Amino acid sequence: MNDNEQLQHWIDRVDTELVRYFADKDMTCNPLDRAMEYTLLAGGKRLRPLLTMVVVAEYGGDPEAAIPFALASEFLHTYSLIHDDLPCMDDDDMRRGKPTNHIIFGEANAILAGDALHSESFLLLSGAPHPSLSAEKRNQVMVEFCQAVGKRGMVAGQIMDLAQTGKDTSLEHLELLHQRKTGALLRFCVRLGAHLAEVSESDLNALTQFAEKLGLLFQVVDDLLDEESDSATLGKTSGKDAGQDKATFPKIMGSDEAHDYADKLLDEALAALKAVSRPLEYLEEIVRYVRHRDH
Amino acid sequence: MNDNEQLQHWIDRVDTELVRYFADKDMTCNPLDRAMEYTLLAGGKRLRPLLTMVVVAEYGGDPEAAIPFALASEFLHTYSLIHDDLPCMDDDDMRRGKPTNHIIFGEANAILAGDALHSESFLLLSGAPHPSLSAEKRNQVMVEFCQAVGKRGMVAGQIMDLAQTGKDTSLEHLELLHQRKTGALLRFCVRLGAHLAEVSESDLNALTQFAEKLGLLFQVVDDLLDEESDSATLGKTSGKDAGQDKATFPKIMGSDEAHDYADKLLDEALAALKAVSRPLEYLEEIVRYVRHRDH
Repeated sequence: MNDNEQLQHWIDRVDTELVRYFADKDMTCNPLDRAMEYTLLAGGKRLRPLLTMVVVAEYGGDPEAAIPFALASEFLHTYSLIHDDLPCMDDDDMRRGKPTNHIIFGEANAILAGDALHSESFLLLSGAPHPSLSAEKRNQVMVEFCQAVGKRGMVAGQIMDLAQTGKDTSLEHLELLHQRKTGALLRFCVRLGAHLAEVSESDLNALTQFAEKLGLLFQVVDDLLDEESDSATLGKTSGKDAGQDKATFPKIMGSDEAHDYADKLLDEALAALKAVSRPLEYLEEIVRYVRHRDH
Repeated sequence: MNDNEQLQHWIDRVDTELVRYFADKDMTCNPLDRAMEYTLLAGGKRLRPLLTMVVVAEYGGDPEAAIPFALASEFLHTYSLIHDDLPCMDDDDMRRGKPTNHIIFGEANAILAGDALHSESFLLLSGAPHPSLSAEKRNQVMVEFCQAVGKRGMVAGQIMDLAQTGKDTSLEHLELLHQRKTGALLRFCVRLGAHLAEVSESDLNALTQFAEKLGLLFQVVDDLLDEESDSATLGKTSGKDAGQDKATFPKIMGSDEAHDYADKLLDEALAALKAVSRPLEYLEEIVRYVRHRDH
């Protein structure tokens, strides 16, 4: 997305605020802040906070006021990466071109850094000031966030992912897995922006549809990249899914069909945006990027 | 506390609601619900939810309406136990007289069960209905909860606990560690009850003082029990702290002095209750139990 100056500006703002968040480290509980910061600042596409900020901006709101809320999803996402990379889970040594958290800080500190990022994401959502968000709407945001990330959301997806390794998996099951594991949080990010911008009910529904297509598309492309790309471009070990005998979209559908499916999801996401009361050019650009990214 | 019928009734209500919470298991993400339920239902004193319900009841509120909120602390506490017991942390095989979560479900599922309990505690606080809690007050409760359990609260305490093993530790450092690791959540439980019961600012302050003394007392007694009790009575491995070369109150102060310190904390907790506008007999009973419990 780096060739769009406005999107890149928002991504830079996220990075700047992440650095600021950890400027004041508490050395009585060293290395907690350092371990949290390490994976948060190790790069990443910042897709989740960007989605929230973009929705706010597209509706004429102030994306700066949305930043602390948008960061919550990045904290949450980062906690999930740290835990997923652990030896007893996906056992990944590299992430975003750097050694994973437990390689640097050890397993215990990595688990706790993840736990603290998890709690901190809730603190951001519940405690960040906002010029117009009502307490009632903030409660609704909290409930949606918990549902997206908890025992019927992201964690359920990770359990399904671990459980399905090496087994025959239906397309339906794989889609449910990824709706939970990555889709639910991406959906939340879009809806968070919509709540902050106080969009109409019908726009909220269209944006939710868009987000669901985007989430599935994101995963189909992830699977294709894992199969087709090399580790240097990905910044993580490629061919990992095949090595672990994990079900993927190309494996279940065939590679050509998975590409067709990705194109179809892109079209459906774009169609959902057309149902919204205004043109949403940045969201269009993001979903096209998600389809055609190379890492 | 079993000889007080009213307290035991509330404890039983907590147990009943915990069972109900997991009555409807989602088998698409098996064994997540089972792993969460396993440690939640493996017993425990239910001290945290009890504190919230008791404060509500002492002020004439409805402890039944407080139950979903009170459960949140038990979920949070249970997540922390599951993660603390992991091989890379305290490496405990037994908890409450039963094999620990990772022994039964494996490390990956244990970590994820903890993660899901963590998220679910926030869902309970943000989503549970309540007859009189305002959205603003609920937000305040959420913020306090996040602060109690996150990177300046419980997780910081656990990091400090892991880091201090085998090192010289001052009494001041040990107290900060335990204020964070166990004290902050106990303090929250008392304050949660106070918020639900809408107590006066001066009563809130006195109850907070009480809770801080209770939290420290709880840990001093825990250390004494670890030194003096046997594994069968404790339901977990006794003498564990000495075996792991952990700093404890009896080790730093001497056993007799730690007993004296516990008595002093009990007196201070009772004195804090005297500053409250009404007699709080159940809280008195609980703090006496915490001083004189044998497990």
